[in-house]
Amino acid sequence: MSGVQGDLINLHDMEGAARERLPPMIFGYYASGSHDEITLRENRAAYERIALRPRVLANVSERDLSTTLLGASLPAPILIAPMAFQRLAHPDGELATARAAARAGWGMILSTLSTTPVEEVSAATNAPLWFQLYVFKDREMTRALVERAERAGCSALVLTVDTPVLGRRERDVRNHFHLPADVSIAHTMPGGMQKLPEVDDDSGLAAHAHSMLDAAVTWRDIDWLRSFTTLPVLLKGILRADDARLAVENGVAGIIVSNHGGRQLDTAVASIRALPEIAQAVAGEVEILVDGGIRRGTDIVKALALGARAVLLGRPVLWGLALNGEEGVTLVMEMLRDELDLAMALCGCRSIGELGADLIASGG
Amino acid sequence: MSGVQGDLINLHDMEGAARERLPPMIFGYYASGSHDEITLRENRAAYERIALRPRVLANVSERDLSTTLLGASLPAPILIAPMAFQRLAHPDGELATARAAARAGWGMILSTLSTTPVEEVSAATNAPLWFQLYVFKDREMTRALVERAERAGCSALVLTVDTPVLGRRERDVRNHFHLPADVSIAHTMPGGMQKLPEVDDDSGLAAHAHSMLDAAVTWRDIDWLRSFTTLPVLLKGILRADDARLAVENGVAGIIVSNHGGRQLDTAVASIRALPEIAQAVAGEVEILVDGGIRRGTDIVKALALGARAVLLGRPVLWGLALNGEEGVTLVMEMLRDELDLAMALCGCRSIGELGADLIASGG
Amino acid sequence: MSGVQGDLINLHDMEGAARERLPPMIFGYYASGSHDEITLRENRAAYERIALRPRVLANVSERDLSTTLLGASLPAPILIAPMAFQRLAHPDGELATARAAARAGWGMILSTLSTTPVEEVSAATNAPLWFQLYVFKDREMTRALVERAERAGCSALVLTVDTPVLGRRERDVRNHFHLPADVSIAHTMPGGMQKLPEVDDDSGLAAHAHSMLDAAVTWRDIDWLRSFTTLPVLLKGILRADDARLAVENGVAGIIVSNHGGRQLDTAVASIRALPEIAQAVAGEVEILVDGGIRRGTDIVKALALGARAVLLGRPVLWGLALNGEEGVTLVMEMLRDELDLAMALCGCRSIGELGADLIASGG
Amino acid sequence: MSGVQGDLINLHDMEGAARERLPPMIFGYYASGSHDEITLRENRAAYERIALRPRVLANVSERDLSTTLLGASLPAPILIAPMAFQRLAHPDGELATARAAARAGWGMILSTLSTTPVEEVSAATNAPLWFQLYVFKDREMTRALVERAERAGCSALVLTVDTPVLGRRERDVRNHFHLPADVSIAHTMPGGMQKLPEVDDDSGLAAHAHSMLDAAVTWRDIDWLRSFTTLPVLLKGILRADDARLAVENGVAGIIVSNHGGRQLDTAVASIRALPEIAQAVAGEVEILVDGGIRRGTDIVKALALGARAVLLGRPVLWGLALNGEEGVTLVMEMLRDELDLAMALCGCRSIGELGADLIASGG
Repeated sequence: MSGVQGDLINLHDMEGAARERLPPMIFGYYASGSHDEITLRENRAAYERIALRPRVLANVSERDLSTTLLGASLPAPILIAPMAFQRLAHPDGELATARAAARAGWGMILSTLSTTPVEEVSAATNAPLWFQLYVFKDREMTRALVERAERAGCSALVLTVDTPVLGRRERDVRNHFHLPADVSIAHTMPGGMQKLPEVDDDSGLAAHAHSMLDAAVTWRDIDWLRSFTTLPVLLKGILRADDARLAVENGVAGIIVSNHGGRQLDTAVASIRALPEIAQAVAGEVEILVDGGIRRGTDIVKALALGARAVLLGRPVLWGLALNGEEGVTLVMEMLRDELDLAMALCGCRSIGELGADLIASGG
Repeated sequence: MSGVQGDLINLHDMEGAARERLPPMIFGYYASGSHDEITLRENRAAYERIALRPRVLANVSERDLSTTLLGASLPAPILIAPMAFQRLAHPDGELATARAAARAGWGMILSTLSTTPVEEVSAATNAPLWFQLYVFKDREMTRALVERAERAGCSALVLTVDTPVLGRRERDVRNHFHLPADVSIAHTMPGGMQKLPEVDDDSGLAAHAHSMLDAAVTWRDIDWLRSFTTLPVLLKGILRADDARLAVENGVAGIIVSNHGGRQLDTAVASIRALPEIAQAVAGEVEILVDGGIRRGTDIVKALALGARAVLLGRPVLWGLALNGEEGVTLVMEMLRDELDLAMALCGCRSIGELGADLIASGG
Repeated sequence: MSGVQGDLINLHDMEGAARERLPPMIFGYYASGSHDEITLRENRAAYERIALRPRVLANVSERDLSTTLLGASLPAPILIAPMAFQRLAHPDGELATARAAARAGWGMILSTLSTTPVEEVSAATNAPLWFQLYVFKDREMTRALVERAERAGCSALVLTVDTPVLGRRERDVRNHFHLPADVSIAHTMPGGMQKLPEVDDDSGLAAHAHSMLDAAVTWRDIDWLRSFTTLPVLLKGILRADDARLAVENGVAGIIVSNHGGRQLDTAVASIRALPEIAQAVAGEVEILVDGGIRRGTDIVKALALGARAVLLGRPVLWGLALNGEEGVTLVMEMLRDELDLAMALCGCRSIGELGADLIASGG
Repeated sequence: MSGVQGDLINLHDMEGAARERLPPMIFGYYASGSHDEITLRENRAAYERIALRPRVLANVSERDLSTTLLGASLPAPILIAPMAFQRLAHPDGELATARAAARAGWGMILSTLSTTPVEEVSAATNAPLWFQLYVFKDREMTRALVERAERAGCSALVLTVDTPVLGRRERDVRNHFHLPADVSIAHTMPGGMQKLPEVDDDSGLAAHAHSMLDAAVTWRDIDWLRSFTTLPVLLKGILRADDARLAVENGVAGIIVSNHGGRQLDTAVASIRALPEIAQAVAGEVEILVDGGIRRGTDIVKALALGARAVLLGRPVLWGLALNGEEGVTLVMEMLRDELDLAMALCGCRSIGELGADLIASGG
């Protein structure tokens, strides 16, 4: 990629190049949203509609992008989102992502549906590594997985709460999405499953999820989860102020405002639109993150101005991974970090703490 | 169709396949709206603009989609809308639709302009069957038709009130829409008419409607209608709170918020936009239904969250019918039911009663 | 056209057919607006965005479209707008238009820039005929023209007030718009001019207007005009409530809310958007008309619901004229009248007086 | 160009012709905005969305477009914006622009990044000439440049405050934007630089700016600047009311509401949207100008109605320059002046002072 790197100058370019590189079934799995992909598009469009009010003459010769999350230091308010099956994008899969994270100290959230064991991923990075969790119907297996992640050195659990059942991603249904022969699920799954079933008229992931996920999960399961782990628990997939309050009252350490990248409930509100009411309700009691549609440094400015402490970057990391493994992931993260740095300078902000609501123009 | 069913995974697909299957005159009759089709498009677009605020961690392992309408049980809050001339879509016509309704218990509303006698349709289903009615200039014939429907076992009357005259559907005018030789109107029409006239420069239906429909109908005719039938009467085509109040005060059993699928007054307000003011005015005194533009399970969530008790599904039923008769209708209804089931799970709702206004994002 | 009439079923069709029939210079002159044509498009789009709230069960078996304007009866609230150079569209020009007006009793406003003398036009119709006026730099000639129109039997004067100078219609500039050899201005123009000058780099009309129109005209000229004519005076081109009040205070008989069909100030507010504030300010003291963008019967419903007493129809009359002379004008007027009749029926309105503000949905 | 001038009748035409004339690297440098060019598009779109409320019968036979800026007379409220590297557009570069300015008395702002020495430019015009300034890391060089501009006869300084670092203009990055052999920077730059570096994977201007610009500049530097110059100082790049107040309190003579033509912070608010809050905050204490997206005379009407005293015209001047040097610049300025004259006449305004907020329709 070094030969073509000069032509890949933003995250849109990375997506375009990855689309050419990846098989349609895999690109489609990564890129698609559910149903009509209205939320997928709105996640992005909502950022583009927000106008910024930059400050001038603020001495921005030095910008400090660093922040902390759950007490850990990060070089910038950007985490690598949990994404399944990274070996579909590149043979090194999650290991390449972890190595890129380690190189710069990027925080990373490993998906339950990793194609690399958590122990190997954890060994590859000393930056913050969190573990993303689904609650399985088999609670003992869930518990075992949590304990394994904790033993492996993960420093927080991210419980995905927007997936009691899997959203219908029609591109996957049409492509009969499944795992190729050389890619397996690394962690113990219900029934010892390591592959997605190949089904004639559906996505293999959908069939897998249906058999695996416990749709009965409730707020009481937060207590259950905290009963056998000391790790801080964040909930990913909150889109309402009342649920955010429930999360705080149930002792979570953080909230990730998310609609699962538009892959679960279609026409769910864009995550950046949901953020303000949640930030107001949480009132600083726990840390708030947001994902969905972030492609530019100014998007991060907007997310932080509206109450997030950091953002999660998802699909673009996969495009980097697909194009050049660890180097590609590094390139993507650096592109976005550099854009944030530039956006902060142009907004007259020297540090993350200066990104406030006054930067947002009213009347979008 | 079983061979291609894997490619038909949503109602949009069904429409696309039906467009290829049906003669343009027939597809155009079913698909078109009046004049510039602004209301037709707005019916759909209005749903797409409404954003949802899903709840999490609500134990949605079991979802109960069942509801009641006028005291009768329904497997889901979806009725088959009254649609004319179903034998244009498939040789089995209304019988196929009724058999699909019977199989799952779907409620069905039979059009006055049926191409199958109400007695045969009624014999084919033991699910709720309602009869849609126009008031003819010939009141005795109107009365006879009502009594016939009642004798045949229909359990409610749906009086269409938005059609004192027929809206101008320009596609039908251009296509000189008429009934082919092998399709006839089953019920006695004024003058014994069983065909639409073939006219050079107009839609045959328009000519027929002009001779048949009584534009003089008023609220007093609700009394007249109720004087010779004990069936509950619903009004279909209400778009204003004041008319909804008049309906309640005139003793109707229900209101169907509808603009006739964009086929009557063009630029009439989208039905989902009209629903909230009507729900507020009716305040639960009678049951409210809504139709127009519903293509996704989330649309039903939105309709119920905004005050409807159930929705009517129209054109997509015809696409299913056209593609595969009874099986096609079943497929369409199951697609939508399954999408509603999924949407409820992803919204954190276990039962129809939990679909409340808090699910709707403001400023959508 | 009788052979193709079946394919011409609305005003859009008429425009399409006229575009094929007319030379580009002439079609462009009629169809274009000034500069970027933003107001031209907004005039139309503003109507399409307004949603209607139809009433039901109102006994609309008889609809009465008739109304009065300045005390004269009209078969429907539609006048033929003043339009220049009608012999560009058809050899019979304004005579054909007048004959069509006479046949049905349509009111007609004759342009100062007529290609037929007002006496001949007046002789061709006994329906209301008004005379549109510009104030020339040569006031005596202006006065003479008014007296001539009055003698010829015109029953009102329509003073165009939005044209102190001519708007820049770039299509005319590019086409070097001018009058062909066989078309002349019928009324005495300053300097005896009967042709538009042919200029290399501009519209001939623009050059003509520059030499002819008095940009110095003020409210005091209304007094001057009324000093030598007993005809009622209407002002055409008002877009603000304060100007409407000035008009009332200066003794006008009526106000025509208009932006000159988007041909004068580009980005001027759409006339239907300007109407409500004007109707409120005028409070019924004088009659209000509106033009610009009317293509459907529902547009007239909206204009009247928002405070207009009637509308002016412009370009579509020219398309009818171009396609079939008197018959074409008749066809166009009847199309629109029939659409209004249908729209009233579907709105539950039996007479013009029932078209009220409650028909308009809020939040457009 | 005289041969084709008849086809170039507005500023859009000029851009189209320049696009064909100029090498892509140069056209791209002039035309592009930063990142996704959202602000670039919004600058224009925001003007198109504002609707005007013209007045009538106001005696507009004479329009006076003249105004004053900082006490100097101008023939119209239009200045030539500071634009770098004008010899890229035409061999005569800034000299041609200055000669066009001189001919009509247009005010002109010379860019620090001029390709012609300020002394030569100043000698070419006796109309107001202002000097645009960046604060360099090398403060002595900055001071020397200011003193040189002052000696050369510039009558005001325009300090650009929205460029502590350079916005990322991706077209320039892709084109490896650099100065051709025959074009040099005329003023002493840090390190004696007269060329932009040619860099493999970036814009040469970006590299240059990075080494040159002082991102540490603060409000205190206004004091520093005023300590060695008696010239009035304007700040260019203000987009917020609070920064505008700070500017006033720091003794500036004027404020230029600007987002640098969409070339700095992408998604920054459109300048015309930012203007009202700034005009309100400044309350007439200093003069306000605005730039960005002005292409029509009505845009100037809107800018002045919303509180600006004059506007800056940028890119269109370059298109004129590229097409025909001094004559082309003259043509562009005259086009816009003539459109403003026409717009004022059609708005019923005889002088610049009559352009008030009542001309703007609400709810745009």
